[in-house]
Parts: sequence; structure tokens; C-alpha cells
Amino acid sequence: MFFASDNWAGAHKSIAERLLAESADFAAAYGNSDYDKKVEARFSEIFEREVSVFFVATGTAANSLSLASVQRPGGIAFCHQEAHVTQDECGAPEFFSGASRLMPVAGDFGKIDPAELSAKIAAFPEDAVHHGRASAVTITQATEIGTVYSLPEIGEISAIAKKRNLPLHMDGARFANALVALNATPAEMTWKRGVDILSFGGTKNGCWCAEAIIFFNPEQAKEMPFIRKRAAQLFSKSRFISAQFDAYLENGLWLDLARHSNGMAERLRAGIGASNSARLAWPTASNEVFAVIQKSAAKTAEGRGAKFYEWPIPAGMPDLLSEGETLVRLVTSFATTEADVDGFLKCLAA
Amino acid sequence: MFFASDNWAGAHKSIAERLLAESADFAAAYGNSDYDKKVEARFSEIFEREVSVFFVATGTAANSLSLASVQRPGGIAFCHQEAHVTQDECGAPEFFSGASRLMPVAGDFGKIDPAELSAKIAAFPEDAVHHGRASAVTITQATEIGTVYSLPEIGEISAIAKKRNLPLHMDGARFANALVALNATPAEMTWKRGVDILSFGGTKNGCWCAEAIIFFNPEQAKEMPFIRKRAAQLFSKSRFISAQFDAYLENGLWLDLARHSNGMAERLRAGIGASNSARLAWPTASNEVFAVIQKSAAKTAEGRGAKFYEWPIPAGMPDLLSEGETLVRLVTSFATTEADVDGFLKCLAA
Amino acid sequence: MFFASDNWAGAHKSIAERLLAESADFAAAYGNSDYDKKVEARFSEIFEREVSVFFVATGTAANSLSLASVQRPGGIAFCHQEAHVTQDECGAPEFFSGASRLMPVAGDFGKIDPAELSAKIAAFPEDAVHHGRASAVTITQATEIGTVYSLPEIGEISAIAKKRNLPLHMDGARFANALVALNATPAEMTWKRGVDILSFGGTKNGCWCAEAIIFFNPEQAKEMPFIRKRAAQLFSKSRFISAQFDAYLENGLWLDLARHSNGMAERLRAGIGASNSARLAWPTASNEVFAVIQKSAAKTAEGRGAKFYEWPIPAGMPDLLSEGETLVRLVTSFATTEADVDGFLKCLAA
Amino acid sequence: MFFASDNWAGAHKSIAERLLAESADFAAAYGNSDYDKKVEARFSEIFEREVSVFFVATGTAANSLSLASVQRPGGIAFCHQEAHVTQDECGAPEFFSGASRLMPVAGDFGKIDPAELSAKIAAFPEDAVHHGRASAVTITQATEIGTVYSLPEIGEISAIAKKRNLPLHMDGARFANALVALNATPAEMTWKRGVDILSFGGTKNGCWCAEAIIFFNPEQAKEMPFIRKRAAQLFSKSRFISAQFDAYLENGLWLDLARHSNGMAERLRAGIGASNSARLAWPTASNEVFAVIQKSAAKTAEGRGAKFYEWPIPAGMPDLLSEGETLVRLVTSFATTEADVDGFLKCLAA
Repeated sequence: MFFASDNWAGAHKSIAERLLAESADFAAAYGNSDYDKKVEARFSEIFEREVSVFFVATGTAANSLSLASVQRPGGIAFCHQEAHVTQDECGAPEFFSGASRLMPVAGDFGKIDPAELSAKIAAFPEDAVHHGRASAVTITQATEIGTVYSLPEIGEISAIAKKRNLPLHMDGARFANALVALNATPAEMTWKRGVDILSFGGTKNGCWCAEAIIFFNPEQAKEMPFIRKRAAQLFSKSRFISAQFDAYLENGLWLDLARHSNGMAERLRAGIGASNSARLAWPTASNEVFAVIQKSAAKTAEGRGAKFYEWPIPAGMPDLLSEGETLVRLVTSFATTEADVDGFLKCLAA
Repeated sequence: MFFASDNWAGAHKSIAERLLAESADFAAAYGNSDYDKKVEARFSEIFEREVSVFFVATGTAANSLSLASVQRPGGIAFCHQEAHVTQDECGAPEFFSGASRLMPVAGDFGKIDPAELSAKIAAFPEDAVHHGRASAVTITQATEIGTVYSLPEIGEISAIAKKRNLPLHMDGARFANALVALNATPAEMTWKRGVDILSFGGTKNGCWCAEAIIFFNPEQAKEMPFIRKRAAQLFSKSRFISAQFDAYLENGLWLDLARHSNGMAERLRAGIGASNSARLAWPTASNEVFAVIQKSAAKTAEGRGAKFYEWPIPAGMPDLLSEGETLVRLVTSFATTEADVDGFLKCLAA
Repeated sequence: MFFASDNWAGAHKSIAERLLAESADFAAAYGNSDYDKKVEARFSEIFEREVSVFFVATGTAANSLSLASVQRPGGIAFCHQEAHVTQDECGAPEFFSGASRLMPVAGDFGKIDPAELSAKIAAFPEDAVHHGRASAVTITQATEIGTVYSLPEIGEISAIAKKRNLPLHMDGARFANALVALNATPAEMTWKRGVDILSFGGTKNGCWCAEAIIFFNPEQAKEMPFIRKRAAQLFSKSRFISAQFDAYLENGLWLDLARHSNGMAERLRAGIGASNSARLAWPTASNEVFAVIQKSAAKTAEGRGAKFYEWPIPAGMPDLLSEGETLVRLVTSFATTEADVDGFLKCLAA
Repeated sequence: MFFASDNWAGAHKSIAERLLAESADFAAAYGNSDYDKKVEARFSEIFEREVSVFFVATGTAANSLSLASVQRPGGIAFCHQEAHVTQDECGAPEFFSGASRLMPVAGDFGKIDPAELSAKIAAFPEDAVHHGRASAVTITQATEIGTVYSLPEIGEISAIAKKRNLPLHMDGARFANALVALNATPAEMTWKRGVDILSFGGTKNGCWCAEAIIFFNPEQAKEMPFIRKRAAQLFSKSRFISAQFDAYLENGLWLDLARHSNGMAERLRAGIGASNSARLAWPTASNEVFAVIQKSAAKTAEGRGAKFYEWPIPAGMPDLLSEGETLVRLVTSFATTEADVDGFLKCLAA
């Protein structure tokens, strides 16, 4: 009953086996082997256009280097106030982009509110040298609190960014989960809606450590080979990332894994919805479920070995809790089983 | 016949299999699992004292964050003029340490000359605010050109550093190869000779991507958790590095692998020494061999599939080449076979 | 009728004349002359304890280098949400402190709310590596909107900072104006209330460009000579700053100038308070006045040559404006005359 | 007898008086006044083309921000091995340009050797991600050791830079001294010979603190307003720099001052050349003279109040000293008198 995070799971067997299979051979280092290039090329197929791809090894790196690539002196990147980039990366995005700033923007359900975004950007006229200047917008898909931007919502954010020529970055640490939730194609959820740069996450969805930075306009990627190397993210045995993606992308494994973890979340949501002693805190669509449960039930669950985090009420939300209740985050993964879910649901009823 | 670099090899089977075995379970993320802690603790045993250990994923990160941990404003770290940190990391050490500087120091055979080091440090009196100030010394063991500092040589460098209270860092990307070459213990080659911080490399010697930063004085490591996280080197599924080290360090595998690759280098050296048409460029002791061979022999070898790099004459060395000759670097690894070596030697004779 | 900012004024005659007098001689460069040292030493007298003093030339530099001196990786400095450091310095504080972050804190009347500060700091437990960590608190005295922290209020902020061992910095760009408003001594308004580092501003109050960073604990200043030089703020002819401070501090000129500008602000406040067609937006105590006036009156004033800025309603304040009204900021300086003030007041009545 | 440095002089009387005259009025802050713009515009006249001008207050800032404006990740700027940027700025150029690197290049008499420069640049092929990449060339005119690049020499360096599309920066801390020495126009010594960015120094030649960064191609200056503000070099009372330049550039004062200090250096050289007990160390052409004198004469001169520095033999030069001799640097300035020179020469004879 591991619901603490999808990164508590290990790696999918097919991915670990591919790594084992790849371990025997020699190949050119630093991403220069044919194998690396073949796997990189797969992304152009998946996204239905020529893209520039840079493998890195952590989500922190993917987001930070994406933002670094569009850095300007005094630059400000706008993100949701609960975004991972601003909450959980110890200042890495600012560090890698030469002390550019992240500007939190409010919005319900973990999503940037378009009007708020417009207002925040408007506070930085193009030549206002004292205030700094707008340099990028970044959204998280799926969001930190389990919700998913619809395609029109992405388009709306993108239109606001484009008005000021700001590149739009998508933190796709849970890209596959969002994609499956929307039943959309990778192209539809990204460049067709104005996304310029994508952190394409593999780690949370079954890889050991495989993240790809995707530039939909390769011209914007010109500095990236140097940015990545200087950031200590160019791997000598780069194909250990390639091998993970090779297996991950093969025969739609990545989508199957996301469908599985989303399905497990759905099973959790259904069970909680039907429960007398718990309720959903807000609707979610990906592999995260937020529930208000009895503190006693939380205790019971922990006693039976369940792992999960109690969670603070997100900024801007009304207080959701009555006496004796707590908010918990439950994250499912490719490795979550029906037994895990049902076991947890039983704790609620206990 | 892959002699281009030890990082062209994949991963040792035992290491890849351990990764596969570890892939099934759940575990706390970000290095907080018992397994991570157990593997970290192994380093204290190996070094015969309590050490602080930080896993990272590239040698660039290990070196850069080591130096960042001792950074001071206007600081200067002294390294050999051929050192990897200054030649091959795209400025990453400077970047991570807030624009501190690397100061190249001359020295024969890839090793810092103690007198040169003393002179260079002396050029930076403690309070000379214009020049910047000495902040660290870093040596590479084994060196970039296949040689190895003897224990007294390390002690001599260390004594010079200590006179000015400069921390001494060792880039041990090929730590095991040097250790085996010296037949020394890890403690003898490091803190017993005054090394303060070590980049302990696993990648080149059989791992996929496993590097550890070792602080022999845990007090100096206080900032490291934040430095590492901000550098995008804290892995959510950190145990994929732990698993590699677990297998690597088990039953002395790491030393066996280094012995093997050093042995293959010895076989190469012996063959070249006995050759009429080639000669050793200078004596080496680890898994790198530098040879002067006929350009025609290089062509032949490449024609037969051998991979290696022609190499520039290191700075400060006399010209070693006669008409028709070239200098080549030959790197052996855990995966090099006797057949590879013998096959290459045959090319020389051809 | 120049009320746009106190930095629209030139330099006080005594200060400019001192510069002229000093221009003839030779003296050791880079702050090493006896004259520089004499002026630096004056600050220890003024603050009634031994302080370390670093002259710099802009307020941006004073604040940024103060914060840089207490930087930690992943560090976060807490400031009021309207603070100059976060609103008007183009990211300089973050840049100089290696991408540390500024965290805005709410509070009425431009002053950090102690409860808000405690809550914000509490969100960063000491070892929470993902979130970053608390590293400093900075307050602005006088504030950006003309108010002044009382001595107990400073003590309260300081006590919160001290609980977490966070250094407290005071942005004293308008230090003299606040001091005079409180009728306090420099010591009482700073280290006696727990301030550790002060940006002591001279520029806005009659100098051309003279700012001093004051460390009340000289031990904390150890890195500053290098931080300042690397920041391009060590002046070769440093005594042109010393000369400004020499005249500024002589015979209490600095306090006289502040009394004058505060007095001009008081005259403005009195006139506006007595006006039928205008009102004070909120009470201020230093040399800034915020008034709600008729848009037509603003037009009139501009037509008669008055310079001032229309101002946005500060974050968190209720809307202060009725139809046809606008909020204006009026800043007085050492050079403001009674005629200026009375001329402006006449415009309101027009 | 102040020959320690030209920055031991104060400010020329006309310049200090202009400051006094300017001190009385109000004017728009941050360089936005008509006066600031008028003085900025003067530079376009002086350079016979439209230029972009950014006033800053130290030579360190002028050089560092110039280089920062052409920064690229992993970038390397080539400079002479004795250049001020690499020897005397505490790492500021690297700091402001995001940890870009300075690469020292050898060359006789303080000037970059073109063949050495070509070779050093060639070591960085355009796409060699590990090594970093060439990003700029910077020369010092006049050099650190008193020599001056001839116009063809500048052209030769520039041609090498242009071959690789590297911008050429000139550190003109002693621009006027060099200009007068060559009897050239500002245009001839800069853009007509391929200089792209100039640090135009006023401080050493009679200002208090007035430096201008000149972009000959305004397009390259687009980021500069933000780079300068973030670097804490945008002055609120910017016109105190403008006023200095206003007087400095008026009626050719700047050239007169440089002619004077160069003339004093010529008088020194003549006297030393005629001396039995001293000799010129190498020929110089600007306001710096390097002489080999008896240690006893140095003692005598110091005893009589002369200020100057003993100087190390520049790297790459043969040892110039016999027993009992020392090398001294003698810098003249606008404020040096014939009596100073003659007084010093008498010490040599003593």
C-alpha cells in the first residue's frame, strides 16, 4: 500500500531488462551512438514533427534546463503558486538560469488562472528595467494536485504567453498520466496548443531515471548542448537513459503504464466516493487522489503499512477539514495493485 | 577492439542484474530508504572512518559539487593544466561554484609539480582582494594521461595545500584503477595522505552511472544536501545508484574490475614495448596507455574495427613524433578482452 | 515642484563642495587612504560600537551584497511583498547571492506582519532539502510606502528571525528619514533591536552616490572584501564616496537634511489633510506622502510643472479610489522648498 | 612624487566643478534626464557613428558587463595573460558572465600574439561541447605594461576574431592615453579596426568615477539595460557620471589630460634613459614607465616620499635584473608635475 509517491516504485521490468540487455555491448559515449540517436529520433515520430531532444536524468534538471534555455537577464518565469518548480526544487530553476526569478500565479485546482496570468505579466512592461521582465510561462501537466489542464485551457495560457512572445514550457513529469486522462495525442497536448518546450518525464511512470527535454522549435535548442554539459547532465554512458526510453516507448508501454496508474487512482476515487467516512477533497483526473479522511483512519492505515503523506490545504482553497479529519495525498503508479487500493479502502471503513 | 574510452563499455553484468533485482520493490524516494543508507554506510567501512557520502550521477557533477562545497567569493582552485575539470567539463566546476576560477598548474606526466603549485599559490596572498584568493587544490588520480600519483606525492601536494588551509580534492574518476596500481588501501590513498574530499567514480569501471562524493570530514559536508538538490543531482529513485554501488562494492568486485582493466593495459604495454613499429609514449600505471605508432598502423587498426583516439602532445612535453608517426590513447576497461588487446597489437605489426 | 522621487534632487552643496576640495590631492587607491579609514571609522562612533563598513555606490549594491554575504545554497530571504529588493532591483539581490530567493511576506502599511513572517518561515523546516531553506530576513526602514517600523516592531521581527538564527538585514535607503521620524539613535534603531546588517543610504538624502554596508558583527563581514570587489563595487578613487560621507556626517548634516525633508512631507500632509478635494491615503511618517486626489487636480499640477508618480494600490489594500480619483506618491527631499509644497497644494484646490 | 597609479590622483578641477554646478538642480533619475541623454549622445559624435552608451562607475564593471553582454553557456573569452580582467578583478568578469571563462594568451610586451591567439581559438572547435567554446576576444589598450597596440595590430587581432565570429572587446581604462600615443581618432582605434565593444575609461584620466560601455553595433546592446541594472550599476543620480563626462569631453579636455600624463611619462623615460644608474625595462608609449633601478635608489626615493610599486617580471619575459636591482612601475597622471618627475629622477642619481 505505497501511495506516498509514484517515485517510490522501482522500474518496470521491461525497462530494467532492456538495461540489462544493453549492458553487454560497447558504444560511443556521450550520446553519440547510433542507439542514442535512434531513441532520440523516436520522439519526432511520437510528436509528429521534427523535435530536438535532450536526455537528462532528473525532473529537476529537465525543468531547470528548459527554463535556462530561455533565460534573459532580469527574466521572470510565471508558474502556478503550487508548481513543483517553485515549491520543491530548492531553487534549482533559478540557479541554472542565472538567478532568473519564478513568479507564482494563483489559480484554482492547481492550474494557472488566465486572468491572473495576464495581470501578472502586465505588471512587467517590456522596458521596465527596475522590475525585471517577463521571460517565460511554465505549466505543470498533470498538475501538482492531480488535476489536468484541458486542451483549450492550455491553448488559453499559450495565447496569453504568445501575446508577449513568451515561450511556454510544460513540466510533464506526469505527462503520460495527463495524456491518457485527456485521451489526446502528444502533439495535441503540446505544440498544437502552443507549447514550445516540454519536460517529458519517464521516471515517475516506470523508468529509473529518464527525462527528456523536447524543443518543438529546434532553433530554440541551439544553446542546449552547452547548457546541458555545463549542468553535469551529459552522461558518458548516455545509452542507459536511451535504453530506458527505448523500452518505455516501445509498443505504447508508456501509455499502458499510465493507463494502469490512472485506473488505480480511479478505483481509489470510486471507493472513497462510496465511503461514508471519507470524501474526495477535489476532483482529480490523473494518478493523484486527494481525500479528506478521519485521522483515526489514517492511523489505522499507517498501522497496516500504508504509506502516504498528509497534505497541507493548497493556498487559496477554503478550509476543507472538520474536527477529526485530515487531508491526504494518494499517488498511484504503474506498480500499484488492485489489492493495494482495496486494502487502503478497507482501512477507511475500519 | 574498443580503446576509445572506458566509458564506451556498458555495465558489468552483476551490476545490471542488481538493478533488475531492485526494480520490483517500493522504497522511500530521494535516498531515504534503508537500502540507500546501507549502501552509503559501506563507504565508511571501505575508508576505515566515518565519512559523509553523496551519490550523484556524473563525474562532472561529482567534481563540480565537490569544488562548489568549498567555494569562496573570488576563489581559485588549483589543478593540473591537463586536468579533466579544466579541459573537459565545459566550465561546469566554475558554474556550480558561483564563478570561482580554475588555475592550471604545470607538471610532468600529468601530475601537479609541487614547486609550481607552491609558486602559483604564493601569487595569491591571503588578503589580495584584486587577484582573488586560493580556495582549493584538486588532483586527478589516476591522471588524465594514465599516470598515478604515489602516496608520498599525494602527501607532498597535501602538505602544500594544508600550509594555506586549502582543502584538497581528489578526482577519482579512475580511483579503483589507481588504487590497484599502487596496491594501497582506500584510506591510505586519501585521508591518510591529506585528501579532504573525493570524487569516487564507479561509472568508468563498470557501473552505468554511479559516482559518490566522499567527505572525510563530515563537518565540511553540511551544505551539501542543498548544493546537491539545487544542482539537480538528488535522484527520486536514488536507489538505482545505490544498487549499482551495492553490487560494485560487494566482494571486492570493484577492485577485481580495476585489476582486470589494468591488466589489459599491462598486456598492451608489454606488446607495444616488444614491438618494432611502436613504442610507449611515456610510462603509465593505470588503464590508459599512450603509444607512438605508425600512422599506417593506426589506419590498419581502424580498418579492422579498432576504436581509439589520436591524441595531442600534452602541454609542456617535447615533441615525441617522427615523420609518419602519431600518438594514440588506448583505454582498457572491465570489458576489454585479451583478444581485443592481441588483435590491436597485431595491427601494429601489420 | 519635484515630488517624483528624492533621487531627482542633486547633491547638497556641502557635499559637492567637499568633493571639490578633495579633488586636488593624491591618495592611496581602493579605500586604503587614511581619509577613507577615517570616514569609515566615523560609523563606529555613530553606532556606538565597532562596526565593519563597506562603501558601495548604489542602493541596489548595498542591499544585494548585504544579502549575498549571508547566502546559503537554496537560501530564501524573507521581505515584505512591496519591498524594494523584490520589486525594483531587476533581480539583483538574487543574482549577487547566487540565485538565492526572495520570499514576499504580507503585512499592512508596507511592514512585514510578524505572524505572517513566522508562518512563512515555519514552512521551511531546517532540513527540508526540496523546499530550500530560510536564510535571512530583510526589512525596509523607512518602508516603500512612507511608513516607519517602531522600535518594538523591529524588535518583534528580529525576535522571530533570531529564533531560527536568521540574520536580520535593514534596507536603510531612507535610514535618516526613519531615524528622525522615530527620534531614535542609530544604535537603538539597529543592533540594539537585533539588526545584523544595514544598508546605510546617503544618496537619497543629499549625496550623489554614497551607500555603506554596516556589519554590527564584524565576524560576519569576513567575506565582504571579496564579495564587494567581485561585484565591481570597490572604487579605485574610493575617497569620492568617503568625501561625501565625510560632509554628510559632519555636524549632523545628515539628520538636518532628513529633518528638512520629513518636515516638508509634514507640511504636505497637513495641507492635504486640510483640503476638501484631497485626502491622505494612509498615514506616513517619513518623507513620502501618499494622497488620493482628483485626476483633474493631478492634471493641473502636471500642467504647472509638478513631477510626481501616480501609484498602484499596494497589494492587500482595499480599493481607496472613488470615481475621478487617483493615488499619487509625493516624495520630498533635502532640496524641497516650502514654495514647492505650497505650490502643489494650490493645484489641489484648483 | 605619486607614481603608484594614475588612480591615486583625484579629479580634474573642471570635472569636480561641473559636479558642483550640477548639484543644485532636480532632474529625472536613472539616466532619463535630458542632460544624461545629451552627454550620451556626445559619444556618437566622438566615434563618428551611432553608438549605444551605458555609463557605469568602475572599470571592473565596464569590462565585466561588456563581456557579460556576449556571454554564451560554456563560453571562453580570450585575453592576454597579463590582462587586468584576468589578473586584477577578483573573478568579476566570470561572475557577471555566468561563470564564463577567461583564457590567457601569451604575447610579448603585454600584447596578445596573433599566432598564439589563433592556436588557442583553434583548440575550441565550434561544437566541442566538452571543452567549452570560444565566445569573445578582449584586448587592453593601452596595455597593463604601458605598451600600445598599433592600428594594424588591432586589425590583425580583430581579423582572427572575426573568422570565428567572435566579438572583440577593448578594455580602454587608459583609452585616451593610447589614443594620444597613436595620434589616432577614436573611430580609427576602435570600430574601423573591428572593435565591437569598448570600455571607455574616464576615471584614471581625471574623473572621479566615470566609465562608459560603448557598443558600436547597437543591436548587440539590447540586453544591456537589464544586465546593467541587475549588476547594480544603474545609478539613480546618474547625471553625476554624466556631469563628469560632460566636462571631460568638453573642448578636448580628455585628450589634453592624456597628452599631459603621456608627456610626463616621456619626461621620465628621457631622464631614465639618460641615467647611469637606471634603465628602461622595455619601451612604453603611454603613461606607464617600467624601469630597472638600484634597490638603493628605490629606498632613497621612498625616503623622499615617492610612491610607486616594485613590479614582478611579467610572465614570459627573461629576467631583467642584475644583483642589487629592482623593477619598478611608474605611472603618471593628469596631476603629475614636472617637479614630481624631476624629483624622482634625482633620487636615481643619488
